[in-house]
Amino acid sequence: MTGWVKIVGLGPGADALVTPEAQAVLDTATDVVGYIPYVARVADRDGLVKHASDNRVEIDRSQHALSMAAEGRRVAVVSSGDPGVFAMASAVFEALENGPAAWKSLHIEVIPGITASLAAAARAGAPLGHDFCTINLSDNLKPWALIEKRLRLAAEGDFAMAFYNPRSKSRPEGFEKTLQILRETCEPERLVIFARAVSTPEEALRVVALRDATPEMADMRTMVIVGSSLTRVIAGTQIVYTPRFVEG
Amino acid sequence: MTGWVKIVGLGPGADALVTPEAQAVLDTATDVVGYIPYVARVADRDGLVKHASDNRVEIDRSQHALSMAAEGRRVAVVSSGDPGVFAMASAVFEALENGPAAWKSLHIEVIPGITASLAAAARAGAPLGHDFCTINLSDNLKPWALIEKRLRLAAEGDFAMAFYNPRSKSRPEGFEKTLQILRETCEPERLVIFARAVSTPEEALRVVALRDATPEMADMRTMVIVGSSLTRVIAGTQIVYTPRFVEG
Repeated sequence: MTGWVKIVGLGPGADALVTPEAQAVLDTATDVVGYIPYVARVADRDGLVKHASDNRVEIDRSQHALSMAAEGRRVAVVSSGDPGVFAMASAVFEALENGPAAWKSLHIEVIPGITASLAAAARAGAPLGHDFCTINLSDNLKPWALIEKRLRLAAEGDFAMAFYNPRSKSRPEGFEKTLQILRETCEPERLVIFARAVSTPEEALRVVALRDATPEMADMRTMVIVGSSLTRVIAGTQIVYTPRFVEG
Repeated sequence: MTGWVKIVGLGPGADALVTPEAQAVLDTATDVVGYIPYVARVADRDGLVKHASDNRVEIDRSQHALSMAAEGRRVAVVSSGDPGVFAMASAVFEALENGPAAWKSLHIEVIPGITASLAAAARAGAPLGHDFCTINLSDNLKPWALIEKRLRLAAEGDFAMAFYNPRSKSRPEGFEKTLQILRETCEPERLVIFARAVSTPEEALRVVALRDATPEMADMRTMVIVGSSLTRVIAGTQIVYTPRFVEG
């Protein structure tokens, strides 16, 4: 048996947003590896071994996946959303880069998925319909100063912005600082979308002006989208969109 | 019959990357509206009327879709990739905003899809595994000065970058200027990925250092991804990834 690792994006939550390509990987894997709630989304099946692990052990999990593939197993590493956007793909490649040379000849593939920012944007309308920045607000793996620098540059460029991991229980202050930076750099009417658990039964969408945004509106299951200066609500609807046209 | 408009993302090209949610819309629509090559991707079916139109008539097409929905038809507006990323969603909402008041009570939904940047990133490895900017390089609808400003700010913030519509036949000079700006702002070793027609039979992937990148490497079917200063090729492989960790 020839082993492989396929790093699979399960999309934001709904089964209807799992691509046939991702499903085919899950149907042929011998092992599924991932964070507990994502592994739980994969249906049980004879011959499929599930290896669920807690958050923040991404490198251990990646090493486990690669070592099983080296033994000939077909391993699906699952992420929510898209595996290449603040998810497992970079962790697996980091483990690969620092691991045994033999791992480098393994068959490894990334299977894209619907990432949370685009699922959230679709629910709101089209707030990311023009140029945008995608920023992970967690300062677990990078200095806060870099996050602040990127936020200020994104605002200066009038990009729309999509924020992943806006507010963890252990470090809630980052999102409060983010709102402060936005208040210093954007007008008070700037639209902010809080999209929680999109495509799941807990889905909740809220659109507010920046002046009314509070830190408590976000948690780790929330995607936050900040419009550009041109982003608006269509009068008579709840649709938020960013026009394609910018005057010269 | 109650009409609707659903703005559907067909993903980058392969049927295996069309979500079940998108397929279900195509299976229940009475009409499909879109750019010729995207409408051609929808299977013929009794009771389904296809309305294919040329490029650059996005507003006409949107008005047509909305007016058919107002008459009770179930209209799928199709885009390649994700409809919210430089595709039909913003055009439909622009037509809605400027159209008859009655259109504002229509049922309108955006159905997300796998966008080209993430499909291309998945093929290369995980070049967008850290913060990144998504920029449309076409200056059809915005001034070139804004594109240049955003490119310089993205480079200053050491964001990775994903470029849509890098180089049209009618305006090939924009991408040449883009490469010049990158050469002024990034080191010559910076990695540039040219990913053409990902997930189709014409797929081609090329990874070069910025110093070796030339305008001819891109066309309108190419997604261009520029790494951050930390993006690298894993020795002994062809995998390109951006690490999750940035030193403080």
